[in-house]
Amino acid sequence: MPVTVLASVERDVAIGSLALDSGFALDDIVQRVTIYGEPRADGSNVVLVPHALTGSSRVAEWWAGLVGPGKLFDPARLAVIGINALGSCYGSTGPATLAADGRPYGSRFPVVGVGDLVRAQRVALSRLGIERVAAVVGGSLGGMQALQWALDAPEGCGHAVVVGAYDHFSAMGIALNAIAREAVRLDPNFRGGDFYDGSPPASGIELARKIAMLTYKSEALLSTRFGRRPDRNGGDPRRTPWDMYDVEGYLAHQARAFSERMDANAYLTLTRAMDLFETRERELPPRLPALTFVGVSSDWLFLPRLVEAAADRFARAGADSRYLELQTDHGHDAFLAEPAALAALLAPHLETLLR
Amino acid sequence: MPVTVLASVERDVAIGSLALDSGFALDDIVQRVTIYGEPRADGSNVVLVPHALTGSSRVAEWWAGLVGPGKLFDPARLAVIGINALGSCYGSTGPATLAADGRPYGSRFPVVGVGDLVRAQRVALSRLGIERVAAVVGGSLGGMQALQWALDAPEGCGHAVVVGAYDHFSAMGIALNAIAREAVRLDPNFRGGDFYDGSPPASGIELARKIAMLTYKSEALLSTRFGRRPDRNGGDPRRTPWDMYDVEGYLAHQARAFSERMDANAYLTLTRAMDLFETRERELPPRLPALTFVGVSSDWLFLPRLVEAAADRFARAGADSRYLELQTDHGHDAFLAEPAALAALLAPHLETLLR
Repeated sequence: MPVTVLASVERDVAIGSLALDSGFALDDIVQRVTIYGEPRADGSNVVLVPHALTGSSRVAEWWAGLVGPGKLFDPARLAVIGINALGSCYGSTGPATLAADGRPYGSRFPVVGVGDLVRAQRVALSRLGIERVAAVVGGSLGGMQALQWALDAPEGCGHAVVVGAYDHFSAMGIALNAIAREAVRLDPNFRGGDFYDGSPPASGIELARKIAMLTYKSEALLSTRFGRRPDRNGGDPRRTPWDMYDVEGYLAHQARAFSERMDANAYLTLTRAMDLFETRERELPPRLPALTFVGVSSDWLFLPRLVEAAADRFARAGADSRYLELQTDHGHDAFLAEPAALAALLAPHLETLLR
Repeated sequence: MPVTVLASVERDVAIGSLALDSGFALDDIVQRVTIYGEPRADGSNVVLVPHALTGSSRVAEWWAGLVGPGKLFDPARLAVIGINALGSCYGSTGPATLAADGRPYGSRFPVVGVGDLVRAQRVALSRLGIERVAAVVGGSLGGMQALQWALDAPEGCGHAVVVGAYDHFSAMGIALNAIAREAVRLDPNFRGGDFYDGSPPASGIELARKIAMLTYKSEALLSTRFGRRPDRNGGDPRRTPWDMYDVEGYLAHQARAFSERMDANAYLTLTRAMDLFETRERELPPRLPALTFVGVSSDWLFLPRLVEAAADRFARAGADSRYLELQTDHGHDAFLAEPAALAALLAPHLETLLR
């Protein structure tokens, strides 16, 4: 598949210190930003795209179906800004970053919440001269950040598009994140999070990824794609104890690729940020940005009925809030896997931005 | 809660050798049987209850709402026989059993399928003088065994009641079992399965249990029961990295209790037996027993639409096959957690047996 490399500018924006919601503080924070297109000074053509659990600022790589020439977000007409989350491992300050003492934070990295992620983003954009964005668009943890933008900076954001997420994180989600973290911590290489002078906890992060991947897919998708076929590389499940069905081989392959790119502590930090997400008890600002919620019909991690309930709650509070549903068998990951369908769903509701 | 100890007879039935579907054989097999009530010689009052993944022959302990005085299966009128599965760890031959060389089988225990489990049960019952049972009733892996009885011994079983299971195991189920097994294997104490001279892989089996438990529950149940409450034992999720929500504490407590009672190799063996379950390509016997399938409305491990599809498939093939649905928010575990509702659903279809 030919890869189109979109013109982009990548910047590491130093934003200094930040007081976190946990009561702790972080110093010398950097935010990695990738900019596609030319932002107007008033931000009126800027679409900010925070990423999901394992993404990066390079939006055009992981959301290629949504960002690019002729796509919903076309850098020839808009400026798309991707930003790596605080606590992640793709350029922004996170647990693998060297602290003031020259050693990686590791286990010393503080708990961060979605409010902290968004606070860091707002400072970074401000340093770039952007005080207001036309829209914040994100899926999953990225959608939580979009909603957090709407609540924390209602004047700084014209439209929040929240895909596969809602106004809090569920008990099931918390529980699933907890067992994924436990998988990481079970790996002897994890060493309480201070593993940077040794081997990373690859087996743990692989198992965590497999657990998470199943929550991103649907039964129907797995049945269609893999069914009960034996693994392509041979082996007979009747005789071989494990890893001999195709779906097992698929998970193993995906998990290996993931463990090579993801920092284990960043994974722990950002899953906890998801867990902490709860906005239902907040007093709403007098004027909210436009809100568009998108549920995925087959999503069992973020149930569509809870996405719809959130959209309704904001509408009842007087906001310009709507609910759309992506009809697909794919499961939660549909926001990444079915960009054309998502774009078709969103386009009529982004007319001001796109015209 | 007062515990009624039901009168029962427990027997270890030696059934000799068995050729397994994998092509391997096992010698000196024992089947642990628990009998409540008095079996008639012709088996016409016998209800055989094979158990799910982690159960035992003591049906009246884990299905107390269904078996007991005044319950659906009342030992005063019926004989209820529980039997521990081949490969398990509650009295029947399994990986923790000593092999002929005096050491536990451990990693040497062969792959077994549901067909093997049922074959061993049939021999055991025959040794007890019971050549035919009125019904085989089971949930989950127990339901798979009930259906296997119907297919393998149509003359030896009057009615198969299959709860929360269907005619095969799904790709999602296989994948979930694979990651649960991987959790066990990630524990350094597992040592390839030959851990009996040291500490058992408790952390691994705990993580496996947590993964599985989430597949047995529903989002609605967890939200109602735990929501986003912090753990009762204190801790502030905003400041403490993990295990600080109530749902996390619940999982940890349940998993600890489980790791004290379950053999890790038995867990691996019986999850693989589930994976292997596939009956759709079998030629059906000329006359099948009555078949009753029960789907659980909120079950996402065994989707009710697939339970219904199985019931329909047998009905179309001419069998006396029906589908019932347990309406509940509980998830897969409802077959254990809501016995009164299950009994009410089943009773009208078991009239011959119960009158």
